[in-house]
Amino acid sequence: MLGICLENVRKSTPLVHNITNYVTVNDVANVLLACGGSPIMSDEPEEVEDITAICSGLNINIGTLHQRSIEGMFRAGRRANELGHVVLLDPVGAGASALRTRTARKLMEEIRFDVIRGNVSEIKALALGSGTTRGVDADAADTVTEENLEAMVEFAKSFAASTGAIAAITGAIDLVADDELCFVIRNGHPGMSRITGTGCQLSGMTVAFLAANPENKTEAVAAAVCAMGLAGEIGFASLRAGEGNATCRNRIIDAIDQMDAEVLEKGAKYEVR
Amino acid sequence: MLGICLENVRKSTPLVHNITNYVTVNDVANVLLACGGSPIMSDEPEEVEDITAICSGLNINIGTLHQRSIEGMFRAGRRANELGHVVLLDPVGAGASALRTRTARKLMEEIRFDVIRGNVSEIKALALGSGTTRGVDADAADTVTEENLEAMVEFAKSFAASTGAIAAITGAIDLVADDELCFVIRNGHPGMSRITGTGCQLSGMTVAFLAANPENKTEAVAAAVCAMGLAGEIGFASLRAGEGNATCRNRIIDAIDQMDAEVLEKGAKYEVR
Amino acid sequence: MLGICLENVRKSTPLVHNITNYVTVNDVANVLLACGGSPIMSDEPEEVEDITAICSGLNINIGTLHQRSIEGMFRAGRRANELGHVVLLDPVGAGASALRTRTARKLMEEIRFDVIRGNVSEIKALALGSGTTRGVDADAADTVTEENLEAMVEFAKSFAASTGAIAAITGAIDLVADDELCFVIRNGHPGMSRITGTGCQLSGMTVAFLAANPENKTEAVAAAVCAMGLAGEIGFASLRAGEGNATCRNRIIDAIDQMDAEVLEKGAKYEVR
Repeated sequence: MLGICLENVRKSTPLVHNITNYVTVNDVANVLLACGGSPIMSDEPEEVEDITAICSGLNINIGTLHQRSIEGMFRAGRRANELGHVVLLDPVGAGASALRTRTARKLMEEIRFDVIRGNVSEIKALALGSGTTRGVDADAADTVTEENLEAMVEFAKSFAASTGAIAAITGAIDLVADDELCFVIRNGHPGMSRITGTGCQLSGMTVAFLAANPENKTEAVAAAVCAMGLAGEIGFASLRAGEGNATCRNRIIDAIDQMDAEVLEKGAKYEVR
Repeated sequence: MLGICLENVRKSTPLVHNITNYVTVNDVANVLLACGGSPIMSDEPEEVEDITAICSGLNINIGTLHQRSIEGMFRAGRRANELGHVVLLDPVGAGASALRTRTARKLMEEIRFDVIRGNVSEIKALALGSGTTRGVDADAADTVTEENLEAMVEFAKSFAASTGAIAAITGAIDLVADDELCFVIRNGHPGMSRITGTGCQLSGMTVAFLAANPENKTEAVAAAVCAMGLAGEIGFASLRAGEGNATCRNRIIDAIDQMDAEVLEKGAKYEVR
Repeated sequence: MLGICLENVRKSTPLVHNITNYVTVNDVANVLLACGGSPIMSDEPEEVEDITAICSGLNINIGTLHQRSIEGMFRAGRRANELGHVVLLDPVGAGASALRTRTARKLMEEIRFDVIRGNVSEIKALALGSGTTRGVDADAADTVTEENLEAMVEFAKSFAASTGAIAAITGAIDLVADDELCFVIRNGHPGMSRITGTGCQLSGMTVAFLAANPENKTEAVAAAVCAMGLAGEIGFASLRAGEGNATCRNRIIDAIDQMDAEVLEKGAKYEVR
């Protein structure tokens, strides 16, 4: 079933509006093209409503937020809500600065999100007001493990229930939960944490998957998460002697570009709880 | 003859000032270095006049324009005009927002451009006030085809005549026209549309080609367009099993880096109408 | 001994706050991950103090400075000084605009830097008020050569003595000097000048090396400089037919990712004067 979600992206070529950080923005654009979507970037308040109106979905990533882009996020988010477009929040570094935490929370109050995707520390910072975000990476204490999995699945479902958004909590084990069910996903490769932007790429791609699969939102998010993790596996498996994180960054996007429904279907490793 | 245009870039190492978007800026810098130029980026109004003064040409790309960079575009453009530097406009997404269309038009009123380079939808949005820009990609209805080629050649020449700039309209078939003649270029690979920034790269490179070939401007632009398309062909031909758009992005820049006059001369596919 | 500096980075995973340009920022992030550090980027004045507080070091690069980021640089720099964090200045393009030269000088007056890293033209622009910066590349007249080496070593030491910062002057021959001794480093490859951002990458990585080796700062900087140059050698040696500057850009980061203490120890080419 997840394979069909990818096929639907390729068939519909959803145009995705990204208000995202300047660190990983090129990779977000290329992975969106690789999966079959089409990217456009704009954070200027004066034009974001125009831009979002011609798109099918909006990706808000606070990775290098600033006063102008924050205004752009609110304006674009409200317009996307009015138009019924899918909207995703990637609260990069929530918990790492007061501005990030406050902005992410205010966005959650004023904008209706279809998905909130982050690492455990970021999601905890939003859910609990605590969390121990270490910069833009999850703190070790916050990892989802086989030991705390049951509790984390409940946490993800309850976060989804309270926010009304699908929770996508990514790490060594990924969780994609709505208020009733949770995909527990075991794709990916530990080396992906040494490549900047795989999370940002996933967020952009998730919007394309959602926009192309409006009837099966939770599954569509799970498909995007599985695809990214599987691409990581394929990317690392392809490395030759001497190749490292920079080459792998390209191979991961290549793997999305070359992935078809069958590859995704066979490679996806998940269970539903 | 086109090969000499490339040689002249390598001989003179033109320094190019880029006010460009943050999505593809790194690729613009690397392709400028690959072709033999040297890039510098600055959009801060307070310094753009200083920066452009030490350069040979200015590349204005509105891909992620914002209020500050817009002011920088006007200031740098006026200074470059005073100094007689070559200036290019890449109206990314003109037609997709009122701000982009208005800014591009106002730039065309106040700055004298040597070249305007965009896809058909963007150029139509500037020429006709209509156009059906779909985000940053050309709308299918706007494609240059063998069927409408004659009419599009006339359109390109008349756009050049009315603006005083060389028109570079890129797509499956590329057109480079001044008011008298039009290069119809058939280099390139359909897969290039799945790599972000090949158009932005071409714009940066075009400024270097123009700055190094002031006596043959239309030919210099055609040489840059052929070089980019040929690099796309070489890049895609080099792909091994499993490689996709991200690896190809690198191979295209590599192909420019490794291209010499003879390769360009032999690989360029064009006719003049 | 230099190898241990790299090992210490891998052991301590220093979190580095980067206020850097949008041209090469992705490469800075990936090379920081490759060497064993962890990057975070933020230039918004309202949050830079929070962000820098959770980090071990601060990298200030003025490559695409603007009014907002300049304010961020001063705020973050002061906070990092209060907290005793290592701070580096990369005065990209100092000498190329009045704003850049003035900002770099003012930063040097108000912030205590552990290292100032630039090419000869940039450092001369800061030291002498003259210098002949050609955009973001060093002017040929400013190169460190075997002929002027003795004089340049003295210049580097005296720059270090007068600023209180370690001077890292990079080019064909690299100099890393405090007020007493100077590492003369002969790693690197001439082709690195055709890849954008190797200097910016080195600056980011240098902060990680410093943060992880507080007892041996000059040696730590020398280790970072040798590592980058050696990575350039490995990167270029790995190129296959048809591969050029874009592929090499990835291979250089790969080489840092794959480098261990022994490789660095054996490959470093330096003398101390």
